[in-house]
Amino acid sequence: MYLADYTWPELESYFDEKSLAIVPIGSTEQHGVHLPEGTDHIIAEGLAREAATRADYLCTPTINIGVSSHHRQFPGTMWVDAPAFRSYVESLSRNLAYHGVDRIVYVNAHGGNVPHLREVGRRLYEDEVAYAIEWMWDESIPELVTELFEQNGPHAGPKETSMVWYLTENVRAEQLEEAKETGCVDLADVQTHQNGARTFYDAVGNAETGSFGDPSDASKEKGEQLFDAACAQLVELCEWIHSQEFDELMPAGPVSNASAAE
Amino acid sequence: MYLADYTWPELESYFDEKSLAIVPIGSTEQHGVHLPEGTDHIIAEGLAREAATRADYLCTPTINIGVSSHHRQFPGTMWVDAPAFRSYVESLSRNLAYHGVDRIVYVNAHGGNVPHLREVGRRLYEDEVAYAIEWMWDESIPELVTELFEQNGPHAGPKETSMVWYLTENVRAEQLEEAKETGCVDLADVQTHQNGARTFYDAVGNAETGSFGDPSDASKEKGEQLFDAACAQLVELCEWIHSQEFDELMPAGPVSNASAAE
Amino acid sequence: MYLADYTWPELESYFDEKSLAIVPIGSTEQHGVHLPEGTDHIIAEGLAREAATRADYLCTPTINIGVSSHHRQFPGTMWVDAPAFRSYVESLSRNLAYHGVDRIVYVNAHGGNVPHLREVGRRLYEDEVAYAIEWMWDESIPELVTELFEQNGPHAGPKETSMVWYLTENVRAEQLEEAKETGCVDLADVQTHQNGARTFYDAVGNAETGSFGDPSDASKEKGEQLFDAACAQLVELCEWIHSQEFDELMPAGPVSNASAAE
Amino acid sequence: MYLADYTWPELESYFDEKSLAIVPIGSTEQHGVHLPEGTDHIIAEGLAREAATRADYLCTPTINIGVSSHHRQFPGTMWVDAPAFRSYVESLSRNLAYHGVDRIVYVNAHGGNVPHLREVGRRLYEDEVAYAIEWMWDESIPELVTELFEQNGPHAGPKETSMVWYLTENVRAEQLEEAKETGCVDLADVQTHQNGARTFYDAVGNAETGSFGDPSDASKEKGEQLFDAACAQLVELCEWIHSQEFDELMPAGPVSNASAAE
Amino acid sequence: MYLADYTWPELESYFDEKSLAIVPIGSTEQHGVHLPEGTDHIIAEGLAREAATRADYLCTPTINIGVSSHHRQFPGTMWVDAPAFRSYVESLSRNLAYHGVDRIVYVNAHGGNVPHLREVGRRLYEDEVAYAIEWMWDESIPELVTELFEQNGPHAGPKETSMVWYLTENVRAEQLEEAKETGCVDLADVQTHQNGARTFYDAVGNAETGSFGDPSDASKEKGEQLFDAACAQLVELCEWIHSQEFDELMPAGPVSNASAAE
Amino acid sequence: MYLADYTWPELESYFDEKSLAIVPIGSTEQHGVHLPEGTDHIIAEGLAREAATRADYLCTPTINIGVSSHHRQFPGTMWVDAPAFRSYVESLSRNLAYHGVDRIVYVNAHGGNVPHLREVGRRLYEDEVAYAIEWMWDESIPELVTELFEQNGPHAGPKETSMVWYLTENVRAEQLEEAKETGCVDLADVQTHQNGARTFYDAVGNAETGSFGDPSDASKEKGEQLFDAACAQLVELCEWIHSQEFDELMPAGPVSNASAAE
Repeated sequence: MYLADYTWPELESYFDEKSLAIVPIGSTEQHGVHLPEGTDHIIAEGLAREAATRADYLCTPTINIGVSSHHRQFPGTMWVDAPAFRSYVESLSRNLAYHGVDRIVYVNAHGGNVPHLREVGRRLYEDEVAYAIEWMWDESIPELVTELFEQNGPHAGPKETSMVWYLTENVRAEQLEEAKETGCVDLADVQTHQNGARTFYDAVGNAETGSFGDPSDASKEKGEQLFDAACAQLVELCEWIHSQEFDELMPAGPVSNASAAE
Repeated sequence: MYLADYTWPELESYFDEKSLAIVPIGSTEQHGVHLPEGTDHIIAEGLAREAATRADYLCTPTINIGVSSHHRQFPGTMWVDAPAFRSYVESLSRNLAYHGVDRIVYVNAHGGNVPHLREVGRRLYEDEVAYAIEWMWDESIPELVTELFEQNGPHAGPKETSMVWYLTENVRAEQLEEAKETGCVDLADVQTHQNGARTFYDAVGNAETGSFGDPSDASKEKGEQLFDAACAQLVELCEWIHSQEFDELMPAGPVSNASAAE
Repeated sequence: MYLADYTWPELESYFDEKSLAIVPIGSTEQHGVHLPEGTDHIIAEGLAREAATRADYLCTPTINIGVSSHHRQFPGTMWVDAPAFRSYVESLSRNLAYHGVDRIVYVNAHGGNVPHLREVGRRLYEDEVAYAIEWMWDESIPELVTELFEQNGPHAGPKETSMVWYLTENVRAEQLEEAKETGCVDLADVQTHQNGARTFYDAVGNAETGSFGDPSDASKEKGEQLFDAACAQLVELCEWIHSQEFDELMPAGPVSNASAAE
Repeated sequence: MYLADYTWPELESYFDEKSLAIVPIGSTEQHGVHLPEGTDHIIAEGLAREAATRADYLCTPTINIGVSSHHRQFPGTMWVDAPAFRSYVESLSRNLAYHGVDRIVYVNAHGGNVPHLREVGRRLYEDEVAYAIEWMWDESIPELVTELFEQNGPHAGPKETSMVWYLTENVRAEQLEEAKETGCVDLADVQTHQNGARTFYDAVGNAETGSFGDPSDASKEKGEQLFDAACAQLVELCEWIHSQEFDELMPAGPVSNASAAE
Repeated sequence: MYLADYTWPELESYFDEKSLAIVPIGSTEQHGVHLPEGTDHIIAEGLAREAATRADYLCTPTINIGVSSHHRQFPGTMWVDAPAFRSYVESLSRNLAYHGVDRIVYVNAHGGNVPHLREVGRRLYEDEVAYAIEWMWDESIPELVTELFEQNGPHAGPKETSMVWYLTENVRAEQLEEAKETGCVDLADVQTHQNGARTFYDAVGNAETGSFGDPSDASKEKGEQLFDAACAQLVELCEWIHSQEFDELMPAGPVSNASAAE
Repeated sequence: MYLADYTWPELESYFDEKSLAIVPIGSTEQHGVHLPEGTDHIIAEGLAREAATRADYLCTPTINIGVSSHHRQFPGTMWVDAPAFRSYVESLSRNLAYHGVDRIVYVNAHGGNVPHLREVGRRLYEDEVAYAIEWMWDESIPELVTELFEQNGPHAGPKETSMVWYLTENVRAEQLEEAKETGCVDLADVQTHQNGARTFYDAVGNAETGSFGDPSDASKEKGEQLFDAACAQLVELCEWIHSQEFDELMPAGPVSNASAAE
């Protein structure tokens, strides 16, 4: 059920019955020479809308611009600063509670948003407003990802390329070889850490044209496989959250040694 | 040119040639018993994308959730608090400057966003980062609006109903009479001011089911007329802004009496 | 009853009986070549104090400096940034609640303050701390204003000139012709909008010496008429607000279709 | 020269010649059973306006409401929270720099504002925007204060009573004995510290009706003496600041041992 | 009882029995040519740990970096801006309440932290979260300080020198004469005020090498005396606070004249 | 070189020669039934001080309290909210730049601080104030950790137990078996994720007494090995950073396709 498509009287019964909302969150940023800059929000929206339909949960409109300053050197990358992003997401999440929403799944397709969504989720959790968690599709199907691609790369690689292919066909197929040649195929080949410290601040420092992994290994068919598998995971996650008692999802009270030692 | 559809190398030349971006901004909120809650962002996005195509300017993805707490009593209305909205829009606008954007048109379709977009625009202007202004489609074609509708209503009335009809066909035609009967057809019939002070805080106080104006006067054809006319205005606006010298758009220096009196 | 003139034991009984406070808010900014920069706070304070006396409500001291950066190019204009203004007004308003004040009328005489006072009023309203609304004198007597002046102008025009004349006599009568000649007599003559978008950021862009309307049409007698009429409106407004039940002034609860459709 | 009384062309020459502004800052808060709640802003404004006239400097309108929550238990006390107060003062001070003001004297008559004005002054100083300092009248004439009053008390005592008497005659003379009997005449009689730590959070904890010192020792004549003496000090201060080179008023650069040891 | 040294089961009983925490707060900043930059946090920690041990209260780890920008010209001085300092201290203090702590003594050894700790303490007090007060050791033993030193100086003088000597022996004894010669021995010799206004923004303006008072008058023995005496005061303070009813420590309710006049 | 131990003249030459600072950052929070709550700041400080000594870099005092609300259910856990933590660290880091520091290594021993330190580091990096990175000791020696312990656990496990043993001997050896029995030995045994989403908000949800891994596998000797190995890594990291040109550490400029495709 896509919130934006319905009138308020049509939505009313949803809130009478369910208290979960799915919020798609992506970014608009460079994705190599072969993928559109909307890649992350396209994927997030695609998965969120489909899972909501399959499992009959409410999906909200998408937050299209995220925390992506590490891709800013490439033309067109858009971003908001982290505090603005957190405030925006936190505010809309808290306000959903007016309608009785107390569980939120952030369907996120951009790694740069992760710590910020976790921080927002934690505040909602500690204030006992809602149980809100962040979900990234590829982390729900690690075996399939590994099985399908030799160099799966975290950004603009074959995973995302396949997904966009399946969802929109908006892939520059003729650029896949170029992407492979000028991008960073294997993270092991570049320096991302020094003595255990992460030194990687900007994508441009490690991938000349912005992609990581081997995009030439992508296909529309693999995209469909990934999409279906991830969607099934998301449905399961929503059902799991919805089946929990609210109190079970909320913080435990203080520990005491006496009780702990029993 | 829709930013999200292109790769970064494809976008690069745009920034070499032009420095204007069109940013669609709407809301997700109740629009009576007959319109989907996405009405405002659907309209903003529709106009922004079409004008960008017609006049070859860059259109960014849409900000779908705005400042709408005055509609919160109706199920499904989403909103962010004003400071969070301003920060989000200001941050993404400032960051566009990295790519050379120094003119922004906020194509806005929600009245509740207006003062906030003006405030953001003013900050960018006073800091001389960009000339950013807010544009609402119906204010660009007041004569046509008056000509087409007897009771044009500011929210969920025949203007918006016609536009959504044209853009998506997602209108509950069978609810139009109900909307008329239970909404506020004529603002003059309700108390919005007292001794000159605006007393109107929440839509629910004046329109039982949330619409203002006479939605039954809407049609898809009128929507097309409105859309085309407004789009033409937006194209003109962009061209006007683009044709100005940047310095002309920026603040004047201090006045001195001597110079003023000359 | 002017709060600043009384001792706390004298004020105590007011709070036992009434819960309304009148807060005058103005600005300190250029008002053309003929009016003092204090014009807006002089008018706000004059009206607020008189209405409080006539109707026996409490008037607080005046906030003299508002949101006026759009007049900054003229020497002497003072201003605070919008977030600082909102915080200051919100803080003092919330703290009035300690004494039982739950209704506030912001007697405002500066257009630039309007959206900010409405935002503050909305927060107090949504938090159910107080019903606070913004009132501008000239909007309470539109017919009289139109009747008295051909070109009434929104800033430093004949309305404000007449009021200041009546309240303080501090008008440069010998500059009225100069003001007319070098100011903007008719807003229709200047470009304030482009294709429906407001392009007007700074007063200096449209009025060489800062006034709008025809100040030469002003007189002390007209000032008296305006003052009396507006004061009567303000008294009525206060009485109306005071006569309402607090719950009636506060937000309604969520709408449900069932109840709405009854 | 009182800024609010003049037109912008009249003010222009001031900024051509001088770069100092005097900003009166007070509070609106209980001052015992005998003094009006406006006491602090009346005194600040009185001194600032007179010194500006005597020495031909620019005086701005007054900030009437300050940081006074420690007097909130007494009816009518108004206050803003400290961060809002600092932001408001800092913002208007920074904006004065637009007109060339680079020296500001905060003529303050409320002890509760002191640390906040110093914090704001420090920020302006460290950012090299302006040299802004806080001045309290009674600290400029300690000998006279001691000479005139046996129990001079920091709040609503004979100092302030005398000043208000001289400036406005708005003193409840018949309440002075009551004030003495029910207030705190000698701070040494109450517990304000414990083992060196200040335990004094609210005035009500130490003075039943809110005054400190012996107000019955006040007179209009003493008020005149205090006013004249303090005014002379303020004039001297302004002249001293104005006579300094701006660079001399601004922070020194880093120290080096070599240079220090020379 | 030093919190950091114990396991959580060992700490549990403390919170069952007591609700007071001692929080040492210092700074890291220049202390003349003879003292280490850690002087203030060394002293704060030394006193807090010892008093906690003597009287069996809980001492938390130390906040080592405070508000010291006025010493920044000297190499190595560290500082945080005032708002960041206040937020950090306020946050950790509020969070202590989770464990039942409702009384806090900030054992502070840096004058620059004082107004900020008082502001934080006031917020906790007004919100009725905790009774938190700031304590500076030398203000608890003014007679002893005066007795021991002729020129006791507020910063890096003989008081602090003696304390550091006693606590760490980390004093450059051979630099004491140099410190005396190049520092500011007597504040009366330098200009810190002008016409009653504090003009003193940076230490470097008044003390060439950063110390105030006569450090050559210090000794380890005097340090021991000071330490023991101050520690005894701190113990007494904690016991006094702990012995109060919580309600007694919290704000009184509104005053009414009737009750006050009884 | 430990900053707090030196006088400013002694520190001056450091800044003449080097521009790197090591800032130890830990937390104060429960570490199971066998380790003191100071574990994380003890380890951070231990490593930072030793590496600074070995390689002759400057080490600042320690930030002892971090972002640990996920351990709050256990008595004694202290924490600051994330925004306050970031502000505090950012402010002190920016201020170090006054002395010429443009490289900072945050020696961090608490996982909960990681995203916040990265966010702060990114801001300093993007503003080109300093190259600041976060380093966690155990991530620099993954092989040794794996070799030494079968169940190394991320919190209060054998790694941290061995380190604290070596650094302070303050380990409750007699509680190690209890810790093992009542803690979470193997993360694989508990639910930390659901369908790829991290569901783990509070430690108490997965480890009854708060430790993860098998602490009974710890020893002082292993602690020494870990300490030496990690210290060597930290020295190398500092030397690597110090050897880079500042410009090389700072962000690259915008990419252009032309240049990228060459």
